[in-house]
Amino acid sequence: MSDSHKLLLGPAPNDERLSAAVTGINEQGESVDLRVVTERPLTLYLNSQEIVTMMTIGDHPDLLALGYLINQNMLKPSDPISKIDYDDELGVVIVRTDFETRFEEKLKKKVRTSGCAQGTVFGDVIDAFDDIKLSGSAKLKTSWLGRLTHQINTTPSLYLEAGAIHGCVLCQGDKPLVYMEDVGRHNAVDKIAGWMAVNKSDPADKIFYTTGRLTSEMVIKTVMMGIPILISRSGFTAWGVELARQSGLTLIGRARGKRFTVLAGEERIEFDETK
Amino acid sequence: MSDSHKLLLGPAPNDERLSAAVTGINEQGESVDLRVVTERPLTLYLNSQEIVTMMTIGDHPDLLALGYLINQNMLKPSDPISKIDYDDELGVVIVRTDFETRFEEKLKKKVRTSGCAQGTVFGDVIDAFDDIKLSGSAKLKTSWLGRLTHQINTTPSLYLEAGAIHGCVLCQGDKPLVYMEDVGRHNAVDKIAGWMAVNKSDPADKIFYTTGRLTSEMVIKTVMMGIPILISRSGFTAWGVELARQSGLTLIGRARGKRFTVLAGEERIEFDETK
Repeated sequence: MSDSHKLLLGPAPNDERLSAAVTGINEQGESVDLRVVTERPLTLYLNSQEIVTMMTIGDHPDLLALGYLINQNMLKPSDPISKIDYDDELGVVIVRTDFETRFEEKLKKKVRTSGCAQGTVFGDVIDAFDDIKLSGSAKLKTSWLGRLTHQINTTPSLYLEAGAIHGCVLCQGDKPLVYMEDVGRHNAVDKIAGWMAVNKSDPADKIFYTTGRLTSEMVIKTVMMGIPILISRSGFTAWGVELARQSGLTLIGRARGKRFTVLAGEERIEFDETK
Repeated sequence: MSDSHKLLLGPAPNDERLSAAVTGINEQGESVDLRVVTERPLTLYLNSQEIVTMMTIGDHPDLLALGYLINQNMLKPSDPISKIDYDDELGVVIVRTDFETRFEEKLKKKVRTSGCAQGTVFGDVIDAFDDIKLSGSAKLKTSWLGRLTHQINTTPSLYLEAGAIHGCVLCQGDKPLVYMEDVGRHNAVDKIAGWMAVNKSDPADKIFYTTGRLTSEMVIKTVMMGIPILISRSGFTAWGVELARQSGLTLIGRARGKRFTVLAGEERIEFDETK
């Protein structure tokens, strides 16, 4: 069964730009054919400022660029974007604003002392994170979990086609809405953040699912996006748990079938699943 | 069985700074206790130049710092290091050289135009990578693979204790020598690169094992380290395969038990495993 047709935006396992056929040999020395996911560098500019070079499968560079800037607190979701230019051949994406962003002003000062945009940004994101307390209105019924993971796992994807890729899914109730994949798990998150900004999607009633581990960065991104519930089939880090508790995020890990572990925000969970 | 006592440097699952006890609830609403790995920011300086902030479990900051700079081509393994200072409270590590590095000179020019150290470095690493062709003398017997993975999997580790962590192992023949773990898989690689530089370890007869995927960055780091054989239990990306073929690296993925797939450098493999 697949509910992929109901997704607003989903994986494109048949897009030939996103995977490649390769031939190798197996443990018996026999020839084997397999598909492997594409990975290419994409350099992101905010106006004239070079920000970062990311490794990505290369779909939705516009959403990735926009989501990255929002999740790094360089742009707000409501900031007016005048244009996003993408040059496939050069591997460059440029997000253009009519105004000079706060980030550019801050970076100008910082560059003189250190030159490291990424270092600057880290402290800036943590500062913004500290101000966010997620409201408690959203709910998660335990009966949704098995249905969500079943739908996600049976959706045709690059993961099923080629493996070695991470997936993130924006969900509402027991329905997956947007399913993005990427070689970098943070890219998959950022593409969803970009989609939410473009589509003015309200985060307050959403659930975020990731195949990746629940590290500090994953928790910070989910909280920056304003989504109150984060689920992963993987495990936790100590700082991820601490940040989730601090910000009021519901943090669910090791979610496989009907089993899971909650380490923060359990008050949002309604235990309606029968044993 | 565990051969961990034979490791020159290995995981420290009992080090209380590296994992924490947390209490949560399971799918039945019952209380559960588990251990989760630590994750903390570490900001790296090369002399007075801020380079990057990394998320790490925090063991061996000196090896991590040194290995990062070598794998990013900011230092050569043979460059004389005058001192490595680490401040646990501030989360800062400073690698000091008596000379001004090529990197600092290059960065000074670049900062004026873009301010992004990471972007600069990427092109620099790719340029250096293009000049490397790994020599073909090292061998891999297929019978070593099962023995290596068994020894690695049974070594007491943070992975077995808490999960949600990547591991990398420097091996020689069928023996693991150095086994490093970290929340960032690239940190685990970098710590091994740092260990190799400090111990003047010859890479030419070594084998590198990683739990992570065989992406371009993993292939580039292995090649920059001069190690001719890279093995992972995870899968491949297209660019990882391409770079391995270009540089003469033996690339083995999906290695589980006696099964595996080779996508580059198969001439180094000796098929001695009985069926």
